[in-house]
Amino acid sequence: MTPEPSATADVAFGIDIGGTKVLGVALDASDTTVAVARVPTPSHPPRGPDAGVRVADAVTEVVARLSAEMSIAAGGPLPAVGVGAPGMLDRRGRLRFSPNLPQAHGVDWNELIGGRLPGQRVLIENDANFAALAEHRLGAARGFDDVLMVTLGTGIGGGLVVGGRVLLGANGFAGEIGHMVVDPAGPPCPCGRRGCWERYASGGGLGLLAREAAMAGKLPEVVRVSGGDPESVRGEHVTAAAMAGDDGARAVVEQVGWWIGFGLANLACVVDPACIVLGGGLISAGDILLDAARRAFDALVEGGTARPPTAIVAAAFGEQAGAVGAALAARHGGLW
Amino acid sequence: MTPEPSATADVAFGIDIGGTKVLGVALDASDTTVAVARVPTPSHPPRGPDAGVRVADAVTEVVARLSAEMSIAAGGPLPAVGVGAPGMLDRRGRLRFSPNLPQAHGVDWNELIGGRLPGQRVLIENDANFAALAEHRLGAARGFDDVLMVTLGTGIGGGLVVGGRVLLGANGFAGEIGHMVVDPAGPPCPCGRRGCWERYASGGGLGLLAREAAMAGKLPEVVRVSGGDPESVRGEHVTAAAMAGDDGARAVVEQVGWWIGFGLANLACVVDPACIVLGGGLISAGDILLDAARRAFDALVEGGTARPPTAIVAAAFGEQAGAVGAALAARHGGLW
Repeated sequence: MTPEPSATADVAFGIDIGGTKVLGVALDASDTTVAVARVPTPSHPPRGPDAGVRVADAVTEVVARLSAEMSIAAGGPLPAVGVGAPGMLDRRGRLRFSPNLPQAHGVDWNELIGGRLPGQRVLIENDANFAALAEHRLGAARGFDDVLMVTLGTGIGGGLVVGGRVLLGANGFAGEIGHMVVDPAGPPCPCGRRGCWERYASGGGLGLLAREAAMAGKLPEVVRVSGGDPESVRGEHVTAAAMAGDDGARAVVEQVGWWIGFGLANLACVVDPACIVLGGGLISAGDILLDAARRAFDALVEGGTARPPTAIVAAAFGEQAGAVGAALAARHGGLW
Repeated sequence: MTPEPSATADVAFGIDIGGTKVLGVALDASDTTVAVARVPTPSHPPRGPDAGVRVADAVTEVVARLSAEMSIAAGGPLPAVGVGAPGMLDRRGRLRFSPNLPQAHGVDWNELIGGRLPGQRVLIENDANFAALAEHRLGAARGFDDVLMVTLGTGIGGGLVVGGRVLLGANGFAGEIGHMVVDPAGPPCPCGRRGCWERYASGGGLGLLAREAAMAGKLPEVVRVSGGDPESVRGEHVTAAAMAGDDGARAVVEQVGWWIGFGLANLACVVDPACIVLGGGLISAGDILLDAARRAFDALVEGGTARPPTAIVAAAFGEQAGAVGAALAARHGGLW
């Protein structure tokens, strides 16, 4: 008998389904990113299977672009593909619940995406768990066995590494940290409750706090730049203004940083990480945000200075952490 | 050479240092509890080393009583002793921080207790971690790999089992769940912050909510039984009245149950346990409390019915869970 041809190529693909874009990377055999592709996440599709189909089509499109760029030919060995998706994925890759991707509730990603990529090994897992893997193995948390990964995007995603391994939990739902309620009387959340941490400490939270500040007359310059209507102020306007030296905008970003540090202090009580990695689009706000988060954490964490310091660092892979981790896990055949 | 005599007896001792009592058990070779001893925790001693000395003396006294009851003779093989202590113990057995045992901050339990028990193998660990071990190995959570143990006493202790092992965290501080802040504007906590979960969902929280209700005129019968002054109403008065059918008292116990379920829902987001075990003195309130906690959990947990049910059960070992786990771990030479 002749040996079977290798089932997968040396290159591996990782895809991250986000609230606004589907982002893909190709890693070569030495885990270096050699290609990047992105397409917008289909927005506002009807709920149910059709919505899942459109998102799966976007994933397939990203795989096709990466394949073209890497000159992957049909018939040859195909790259393994890891796909990270937000929300509560069960251990068989079915999306049970996702406040920020409600159009896809109940979707079976394994069936929908796997079915579109015949002959390719496909691994589907929560996006933040993949991000945690990437930062733990190759990024900002290398060398730490107990890591909390927090992705600050539209919402908040979380991944936990305990004793050197990604924690999945009984159902695969561990790390849904954005829906820890931090104020029972707080603003309503798409998850159905009030006062979830991600109402304050995410990109969405930044927008909410910014519009509150704008309507209170505290962001005149930001309101002017965003068209004159306080209601149309967005998080990115505030971040840009804060980095350019606008005091009112800086105060809003620091307020979000306080909420980030507040939630991290809660989580440190529960899981006691040695290193906390912050990723996602919101960390483009840089040190203004990170320093505010660190100050709040130090002031609020139980035990304070009786506790060894906890490193709070930016993700080395930035917004690509989830996609990089997806590719790593796909190559390896699972989280490890 | 003749073989060394066995270093430990077949029996193992487990001691739990609580806010009000030091409780000890002796387990025989088949892990059956064959003796129990308790002495009051020295209260209000001066802070610092002297306070630790008095608590260590109480532990030694419990060991002496168990030894006498088990006819353990000096010169023969001595039982291994596990000692559970509340608060943030580092991995060398030093108490870094403990809101409900502040008199002992900085105490080195290994040195103080180990020094008083020469020739005995002594293992010191957080009390709720021991309770989690006992319930996971022999109690209400047997067969579950992912378990959250919550001890509802003066404060709240927590122990996590993930993938079949007790989670210690980077510094040994994992499971300090009582100091998750659930309302930044809530009442002050001995830990130095406001609105910690244990302000609402512990024995202390029951007392606080009961006195509020008493002062609002909602607990006339309970106030009468406790001497006529609403300020002197204690949790146990309310629990007893609720179980006897007093509607006002029942409402207070159910309010505490709601807060318990609320915090458990937060924790389920983070670690996704298959089974949650409630222990500690507060569960003497029985089904009134447990059912209220279960209802709140089901209503509040992210994903709701999209999530497989999580078992919420009473500790099989009741208030002895910590001591039993301490004995198990001492016999085994560590948490395993």
